Amino acid sequence: MGKYTIGIDFGSLSGRAVLVDVKNGEEIFTSTYDYPHKVMSKELPDGTVLGNDWALQHPQDYLDVFNITIHDILKNVSPCDIIGIGIDFTACTVLPVKADGTPLCFLDKYKSEPHAYVKLWKHHAAQDKANRINELAEKRGEKWLYRYGGKISSEWVFPKLLQIAEEAPDVYNDMDFFVEAADWVIWQLTGNFVRNNCTAGYKAIWSKKDGFPSNDFFKELSPKLENVIETKMSGEIVSIGKRAGFITEKAAELTGLNKGTSVAVANVDAHVTVPAVKINTVGKILAIMGTSTCHILLGDSEKVVPGMCGVVEDGVVEGFYGYEAGQSCVGDHFAWFVSNCVPQEYFEAAKKQNMDIHQYLTMKMDKYKVGETGLVALDWWNGNRSVLVDVDLTGLILGMTLHTKPEEIYRALVEATAFGTRKIIETFNESGIPINEFYAAGGIAEKNSVAMQIYSDILNLPVKISGSSQGPALGSAIFAAVAAGSENGGYDNISEASDVMGKLKDVIYTPIEENVKVYDKIYREYCVLHDFFGKENDLMKRMKKIKNDVSEI
Amino acid sequence: MGKYTIGIDFGSLSGRAVLVDVKNGEEIFTSTYDYPHKVMSKELPDGTVLGNDWALQHPQDYLDVFNITIHDILKNVSPCDIIGIGIDFTACTVLPVKADGTPLCFLDKYKSEPHAYVKLWKHHAAQDKANRINELAEKRGEKWLYRYGGKISSEWVFPKLLQIAEEAPDVYNDMDFFVEAADWVIWQLTGNFVRNNCTAGYKAIWSKKDGFPSNDFFKELSPKLENVIETKMSGEIVSIGKRAGFITEKAAELTGLNKGTSVAVANVDAHVTVPAVKINTVGKILAIMGTSTCHILLGDSEKVVPGMCGVVEDGVVEGFYGYEAGQSCVGDHFAWFVSNCVPQEYFEAAKKQNMDIHQYLTMKMDKYKVGETGLVALDWWNGNRSVLVDVDLTGLILGMTLHTKPEEIYRALVEATAFGTRKIIETFNESGIPINEFYAAGGIAEKNSVAMQIYSDILNLPVKISGSSQGPALGSAIFAAVAAGSENGGYDNISEASDVMGKLKDVIYTPIEENVKVYDKIYREYCVLHDFFGKENDLMKRMKKIKNDVSEI
Repeated sequence: MGKYTIGIDFGSLSGRAVLVDVKNGEEIFTSTYDYPHKVMSKELPDGTVLGNDWALQHPQDYLDVFNITIHDILKNVSPCDIIGIGIDFTACTVLPVKADGTPLCFLDKYKSEPHAYVKLWKHHAAQDKANRINELAEKRGEKWLYRYGGKISSEWVFPKLLQIAEEAPDVYNDMDFFVEAADWVIWQLTGNFVRNNCTAGYKAIWSKKDGFPSNDFFKELSPKLENVIETKMSGEIVSIGKRAGFITEKAAELTGLNKGTSVAVANVDAHVTVPAVKINTVGKILAIMGTSTCHILLGDSEKVVPGMCGVVEDGVVEGFYGYEAGQSCVGDHFAWFVSNCVPQEYFEAAKKQNMDIHQYLTMKMDKYKVGETGLVALDWWNGNRSVLVDVDLTGLILGMTLHTKPEEIYRALVEATAFGTRKIIETFNESGIPINEFYAAGGIAEKNSVAMQIYSDILNLPVKISGSSQGPALGSAIFAAVAAGSENGGYDNISEASDVMGKLKDVIYTPIEENVKVYDKIYREYCVLHDFFGKENDLMKRMKKIKNDVSEI
Repeated sequence: MGKYTIGIDFGSLSGRAVLVDVKNGEEIFTSTYDYPHKVMSKELPDGTVLGNDWALQHPQDYLDVFNITIHDILKNVSPCDIIGIGIDFTACTVLPVKADGTPLCFLDKYKSEPHAYVKLWKHHAAQDKANRINELAEKRGEKWLYRYGGKISSEWVFPKLLQIAEEAPDVYNDMDFFVEAADWVIWQLTGNFVRNNCTAGYKAIWSKKDGFPSNDFFKELSPKLENVIETKMSGEIVSIGKRAGFITEKAAELTGLNKGTSVAVANVDAHVTVPAVKINTVGKILAIMGTSTCHILLGDSEKVVPGMCGVVEDGVVEGFYGYEAGQSCVGDHFAWFVSNCVPQEYFEAAKKQNMDIHQYLTMKMDKYKVGETGLVALDWWNGNRSVLVDVDLTGLILGMTLHTKPEEIYRALVEATAFGTRKIIETFNESGIPINEFYAAGGIAEKNSVAMQIYSDILNLPVKISGSSQGPALGSAIFAAVAAGSENGGYDNISEASDVMGKLKDVIYTPIEENVKVYDKIYREYCVLHDFFGKENDLMKRMKKIKNDVSEI
């Protein structure tokens, strides 16, 4: 009999478990469970109304994922052949709990208290708190700010925690810990409360060298938070790639797994995908392309890279500095276009040819030579997450004539996201973090070969594609194999496990020289626009201010 | 019995005749006749294939317009009560004729010769000839170039004539005159060949003070053209507002009018509309808003206004300098958007509410406050005709977010055309030609009150709307009343006739102060974009060069 691990990817709307053969990474069986409570953005289960920009989840849904998907998997394999389990989660997705791990929202007194529930990554109601943190950090010249490109996001731990402290003091006082859902679910499996160093580093402003921001900083931010690190944020921080513990008796009951099965330290969906595409050294960047794109790469030293999302020692693979960058608007870009700008005849023509609208537009845009549309766009429909780090930047298209067709604009939007990626890669290169290969995962990467060729031509890099359509779950299974260790039939480190269990598609997109030449020219124009609107002239911000001013009237 | 005049507007696809009461401008009866040959852009009647960018017409169609529409009108009124007839025409629309006025295309030997037919204004196959004329004029420092904003158009007389000279030397040698269709139809009514000073001035580089360009210039352009002014372009040039002659016996037979009826000198569709909206003094600009917009205004002196289409003494109303400016892309702008960027659900919703798509989008865009879209666009989808005079400029939209709706973009496009108009008006103001009222004619002006309020707010000027839906034909009827003169029951000058017969709608759009304030801010941003892309940085041209280079491969 073979040996297997289970990787579970906790997404925004469902949990997806995959059973993986540790000897070759083969994905044997998959089981998905949709969260019954989905994302709560309007009201709590009891009807309590939520404010604008709220996004909550119910922790019971996560336990149900364990219960249902693992039992489902165990119809195909004996629990004795499962040597480990690992999980990855959206982040920063956090909840307040009691010392024994009980979520505050499980307590009767807090059933109607929104702040007692899980704040999902895209809970954006703490933007004002993030602004205060950034302003104070800049004023005080906090060094940690540079690790995060000069700005922390409202999605992260401390803005969310500050929101609770100020808007629901009872919840704040009553919680013993404020914990990532990723770590909480591992706690439920092992009985051990350990924080993973990946979310601690990328979302809680922690670093191996310097720890958390000082008490002094928090005191100035809000006297209430002075001791937040020793209290709400306490708990051991452990490197991803380590074992968090073993399945407890209670967890064995919940999941059907054997008591004593190895459990990996929790991880983050994007980061866990790196070994799934066999990246285990420097110089390779992975783009996980969804509604937005997350870029992860390994470096061998800590550099200041302008406008990055973060750098964490051991944050992706032990022994390396894990860098993260992002583009706010990728799949969302194309979805916006399709919802707002595509005429019905295109939908009808697509239907006739049994294509979805994106396939149809891709087929049509593929008929243009590089540069033939005359269009160039800035990919800032949702602001700029990396390099400029500015949510107030907006979209731009240039070059339209009366002959411009929808597919030409679609192509320009695809190219804009690739130019944005090139800008990120060049910024890394210029900062001493060289990149010479591009890896892509996610739906766009797998399905759109025209877009991937455009990326290769624009980046002038070979583009390799994830071999698994469930990269994060596969990545979690790889971490599970390392948690089990070679003594149990697994592996001793991520590098080794990734080599065997990671997967890439056979196809590699390589740059076409004549396209590279033309795109080099267009990229220079992209940079003119990027620098003019991103740095030299605040036109976009003035337009946004006008918009905000009149909207407030 | 009252006294009447007939005005006939020769458009691109039909002729429209209107019977007008001279005592009050009331439009009694209208008759329209569609040209049987329409616009010939693919082939001649006998199947001879035409090249790219060709656009021809058949002069017989114009005679049929006289025959059919005037007889139609005379079912309602006695020819004895018609005191005059006037016409306006598209321009520059030109044909080669024999000394007796016979079009060369009427001769058997030229039936299959494309160059023997009427070249419609939008015949664009002489662009290379226009380029040569412009280059040579600039090289020689020809002063007349300044009257035309530094560039003449491929649509005008000499590029079209040079094309004939070089591509069909027989036709060139055989023609006695190269004549505006406007003047040719008047010739058919009166037996007199007179050229109107309006097309001579705006389209044939003629001025009252300096005449035509020198023989020396034409010789250097092409030896064949050395004596073109004394030969092909000869003929008396007479001011619009004068009488060209009287209906001949032959014309009486053709039309049913009495022999001896007064006939006005020919005029141009846009220019003839000025008196139709009661403009008879300086400081008022008229915008005729169609697929593109033509701006006409009167000044009391000749100034150099950067990037205007032309200035002609007595060219619009005698005693004034008539200035012309243009925007290449107005109605076309909105049509492009509707064809390429509007989702089907909008068409369905419009249908449910019994609206056309433009009405529906207008209703939706009207729900936004000024500045609320956050968008600003450059109205250069078809280049920039006035101020910058640059066909290689292209369109731009800025400010999109993932929440941007189609109606917001539609609104931004409407605003962009109004900002373009403001830029033209400010350029006139800065050049010493003050403007303090805005008049608009054409479908958009009449139908879209939301757009007109936007124009008023952006221009910070009162906007008055043409009272006639057939402004050009009414204008021609006014000129006819002046051709008849007071001795026949008409008027002695345009100013007087325009006061009585011109018409405006009761509604006047006046600027709303709070909107003006916000639009002032957005206009400043429009100007930043206008100057950056129009003057400071050749990005758009470089993009167009890339496009042209790759298209040629």
